[in-house]
Amino acid sequence: MVRTILVVGAGKSTSYLLDYILKKSDQENLHLMIGDLQPEHIPEEFSSHPNCSVVRLDIFNEEERKKAIESASIVISMLPARLHIKIAEDCVQYKKHLVTASYVSKEMKALDDEVKKNGLVFMNEIGLDPGIDHMSAMEVIDRIRDHGGKMLLFESFTGGLVAPESDSNLWNYKFTWNPRNVVLAGQGGVAKFIQEGTYKYIPYQKLFRRTEFLAVEGHGTFEAYANRDSLNYQEAYGLQDVLTLYRGTMRRVGFSKAWQMFVILGMTDDSYTIENSEGMSYREFVNLFLPYSPTDSVELKLRHYLKIDQDDIRWGKLLELNLFDHSKKIPLKNASPAQILQHILEDSWTLQKDEKDMIVMYHKFGYELNGQKKQLDAHMVVLGENRTYTAMSKTVGLPVAMATLQILNGKITTPGVQIPIKKEVYAPILSELKTYGITFKEFEVPYLGYNPDSVAS
Amino acid sequence: MVRTILVVGAGKSTSYLLDYILKKSDQENLHLMIGDLQPEHIPEEFSSHPNCSVVRLDIFNEEERKKAIESASIVISMLPARLHIKIAEDCVQYKKHLVTASYVSKEMKALDDEVKKNGLVFMNEIGLDPGIDHMSAMEVIDRIRDHGGKMLLFESFTGGLVAPESDSNLWNYKFTWNPRNVVLAGQGGVAKFIQEGTYKYIPYQKLFRRTEFLAVEGHGTFEAYANRDSLNYQEAYGLQDVLTLYRGTMRRVGFSKAWQMFVILGMTDDSYTIENSEGMSYREFVNLFLPYSPTDSVELKLRHYLKIDQDDIRWGKLLELNLFDHSKKIPLKNASPAQILQHILEDSWTLQKDEKDMIVMYHKFGYELNGQKKQLDAHMVVLGENRTYTAMSKTVGLPVAMATLQILNGKITTPGVQIPIKKEVYAPILSELKTYGITFKEFEVPYLGYNPDSVAS
Repeated sequence: MVRTILVVGAGKSTSYLLDYILKKSDQENLHLMIGDLQPEHIPEEFSSHPNCSVVRLDIFNEEERKKAIESASIVISMLPARLHIKIAEDCVQYKKHLVTASYVSKEMKALDDEVKKNGLVFMNEIGLDPGIDHMSAMEVIDRIRDHGGKMLLFESFTGGLVAPESDSNLWNYKFTWNPRNVVLAGQGGVAKFIQEGTYKYIPYQKLFRRTEFLAVEGHGTFEAYANRDSLNYQEAYGLQDVLTLYRGTMRRVGFSKAWQMFVILGMTDDSYTIENSEGMSYREFVNLFLPYSPTDSVELKLRHYLKIDQDDIRWGKLLELNLFDHSKKIPLKNASPAQILQHILEDSWTLQKDEKDMIVMYHKFGYELNGQKKQLDAHMVVLGENRTYTAMSKTVGLPVAMATLQILNGKITTPGVQIPIKKEVYAPILSELKTYGITFKEFEVPYLGYNPDSVAS
Repeated sequence: MVRTILVVGAGKSTSYLLDYILKKSDQENLHLMIGDLQPEHIPEEFSSHPNCSVVRLDIFNEEERKKAIESASIVISMLPARLHIKIAEDCVQYKKHLVTASYVSKEMKALDDEVKKNGLVFMNEIGLDPGIDHMSAMEVIDRIRDHGGKMLLFESFTGGLVAPESDSNLWNYKFTWNPRNVVLAGQGGVAKFIQEGTYKYIPYQKLFRRTEFLAVEGHGTFEAYANRDSLNYQEAYGLQDVLTLYRGTMRRVGFSKAWQMFVILGMTDDSYTIENSEGMSYREFVNLFLPYSPTDSVELKLRHYLKIDQDDIRWGKLLELNLFDHSKKIPLKNASPAQILQHILEDSWTLQKDEKDMIVMYHKFGYELNGQKKQLDAHMVVLGENRTYTAMSKTVGLPVAMATLQILNGKITTPGVQIPIKKEVYAPILSELKTYGITFKEFEVPYLGYNPDSVAS
């Protein structure tokens, strides 16, 4: 019997997901139903496939939504995270499994009892980050524990970057995912982590100045700033007693220090709007955040305000974005500074058709085994093929697709609202991901920790 | 017939208010009823007065509250601003006038129709700031207009400070009002103002570095940082066409640059709590916000992090607060950084029994008259007598008391939810305030504006 997989919201990032399902469709007896608000945007290579159907689906139209979900065997929601809950409630009603790549929201978590009662699997956080990070980390942590080791340190870093061959700007960065999330990164709460047994807190105004460097063999040096949520998985991973726990976002060296300019100027603020933004020049926008002067130029005021020396490459980074241009105009009405900054950055940082992105993930595992302190580092680097088949789309879409098929085939059976930290889930998926070139390299390194001699403070 | 004035919430700041009412009570046939949650804290000099009665009043007890309000001729609410609305609703029900020194909230504004329908006066923002600032500014603005002048510039600054004779710390600052408001100052929204016809925005992370200096004749030099709300009164003051509009808070020179250290460290954050705060030393608290080091001291890490040179007096300011003390412990459970910082500051910045505070207000009025650009500056300086009879309590309490009596005596009659910007209101009150030594000095100065030659940018 044909099994119908309903994918709700087939944005740009779903190419690998759809491709995987369709390639398996004959062998696995699958029908792919794509429900999207703009079905005309689904590439023909998918929509014309004999095992694929595309329906127009407005998830706010209850009838359309329920009808689509009722007709499916399993549902994948690739909608923005806040919209999953509508789909999830219908999945409970019609007793359908659900897969998402998003963080488990409070509302989603609240469905756990009902989901279990109905024997359903609601698998979340099974994309890249969250997703492959959970699976690859738990695989190593479980292995260390199986050998009798005790975890001391866990640090994990992920970056969605531009591939070296397509890296053509001074920021060494292009947008490969939702640009809005990049502009708002770090806002909405302090970054909290544990280092050698003490809590550490970094406020937004220092976040991009507290980076650490990371060398990834064969790929050069990166930097990382702290995520807000380093401690969220402490319990899930069983790391309550660990001395150091840190999660970060990777960028190429120098990005964060330059980004800090936008933070300090106030250009990443999304909490208010600028009434007269439409038609304002980029130069006027910059001047909104600088002291008034009847005589000095916007350029010199900014250099002085941010203490940018003549030989500081951050200046080149600003020039490259046309920030001082009189003729470049903002087309957005009544926009927040963050929305305007995003527009300006998209001018310069949009991946071109044949350009490639790159995903880098880096884990550090410190542990004690037989009285000896040891450390294992593991990293994964994935390159995209072009703007459609990105490394981001691959590393998000493939685990989602694989988990969906595993659930459909009764390989993943434990019911409930969950994330992929159980061996039952991660082992077969990590193993299948290897066949797609998504692999981790591991290195034994000396354990340093941060406190070799337990010296004060 | 005796008129009963009900004062709800008689905190430390109400000494002058209560004193004024009682001193007028025989002559004006007044009875003062004080309703407070802790009636035992009302000083005997008031409670033992023959024209005064004190009742225990929990404003969340509807019966107690309504009973008290029903028995009054007019009500003064000196509660925290968010609590006025309960009193206001009862005042509408029982047809009582209301006076507060707080900003008009949305909920309060929404009562305007009903208040007018009942012919009631709900006078708000009639303390110091807001209050005396409105009245003294409108007095000059109306005078300029009456002479045919056109307003070009309005800047207004207020500071609640320590008097020079009681100024005994390196910060040149002590708490003379709600310390929590001082710690949270500038948070919760960008500072927005107009300078020479252009909007300017200052984010929190730069607010305390964008100060301007102000010399007040006979009182030395002060600095001011921008308030959030510079444009709130543009319409009320009739200043829609003005080129420059700015409101600021005054401090002694050097305060803001030192305060910025707390901002950058993240110590003013009130958005999260520190689980293990109770019993933590001041030194450990500081270390939460600094990078980890196995070898370096908290002192050197902080100096390096904030780039504090050997000869920078900001260092002395931190030492003075005992921030690096091992033995000083935080007594607060699960407190936010802002709450902890407030506790540490209260250790050092609390006004002693015989110490005096000082209020400074400074206005600049730029205008055009007969084709000539002119400027008038006006300032007010008020000194307190001691910790009970503070300048703050005087400048907040006297206008409230005077307005109350004016309303009671039918001198202020225009009904509605309002602020004191009409001549009917401000003229008699400013005039009476003079008899208490609350006066403005005016100076004609050359009009500079900020754009003498209209040069670019």
